[in-house]
Amino acid sequence: MSRPAHRRPEYHKINKDLFVLTYGALVAQLCKDYEKDEDVNKYLDKMGYGIGTRLVEDFLARSCVRRCHSYSEITDIIAQVAFKMYLGITPSVTCNNSSRTEFSLILDKNPLVEFVEELPAGRSSLCYCNLLCGIIRGALEMIHLAADVTFLQDRLKGDRVTEIGITFLRKLDEKKYRRKK
Amino acid sequence: MSRPAHRRPEYHKINKDLFVLTYGALVAQLCKDYEKDEDVNKYLDKMGYGIGTRLVEDFLARSCVRRCHSYSEITDIIAQVAFKMYLGITPSVTCNNSSRTEFSLILDKNPLVEFVEELPAGRSSLCYCNLLCGIIRGALEMIHLAADVTFLQDRLKGDRVTEIGITFLRKLDEKKYRRKK
Repeated sequence: MSRPAHRRPEYHKINKDLFVLTYGALVAQLCKDYEKDEDVNKYLDKMGYGIGTRLVEDFLARSCVRRCHSYSEITDIIAQVAFKMYLGITPSVTCNNSSRTEFSLILDKNPLVEFVEELPAGRSSLCYCNLLCGIIRGALEMIHLAADVTFLQDRLKGDRVTEIGITFLRKLDEKKYRRKK
Repeated sequence: MSRPAHRRPEYHKINKDLFVLTYGALVAQLCKDYEKDEDVNKYLDKMGYGIGTRLVEDFLARSCVRRCHSYSEITDIIAQVAFKMYLGITPSVTCNNSSRTEFSLILDKNPLVEFVEELPAGRSSLCYCNLLCGIIRGALEMIHLAADVTFLQDRLKGDRVTEIGITFLRKLDEKKYRRKK
């Protein structure tokens, strides 16, 4: 199931509801497969990671973003360009530490949960949208940036907003360098 | 995970690639879960059925289609309005029998397989896009029309085109009537 080399990037939109309901079916299937919420979360993150590593190439081609010089710039691009392009929303960004390596994306609106009123019974630790964390992590890794990406708040869990935390860890190149020492 | 009654229909588009890759992850998960292709196909159809029963209400609200008076008209609406709205493509329609109850949707292009070069190894009977059949079946049932919907040809299986066959069976009302006798 690899992508043909000759395929040309093509900007194309589809109806959101079909995606949102298909995503719901995917989460429901994983809930059926894995008893523990932690395992479902892990699997959604893993699937998202794979998707992120494949999306990033087209994203860079389509968005024409320039090289970023700070984690802050990168997070702004994720919020203002990537989220807008892929989900039609623009989260707001906050910086959470003085060394400017920890950021939050605040989602007032989350299209992925539009058909979801509440978490399924007995699934209170489920991170329903964890695919998004995996996608961000996978896409960042493809541009040689390691990051932890997790949900810090979730409206589905009763929080006031939905908040995705991104903690940049190090440049992957530095890791390689350290290994060689 | 039921839909809130207060949600108002909203026409909104998202990037296709995110959907296509997420769908790929769903199919991959089902292939992991079910050994037999037939079971994966059945499950995709079942999931699609559920999605179709939920999509149809918004479709009718958004598309403003009038009451159809023939199976031929209904199939045209599926091809020209529904496929266009949800997947951005317009399949051509052929009628396959003289009583005008059997039709084919011919897809020259299928966005769902854009990242798929070939079927996974050992999965030669997989109907990769069977979710679509289920969606059509579910949506039709919600407007009281029973139909068999299956893939008749599939480019992923080496066919020249991808062809979805729709066979209208009877009006659901007739079935109810018969049960009462």
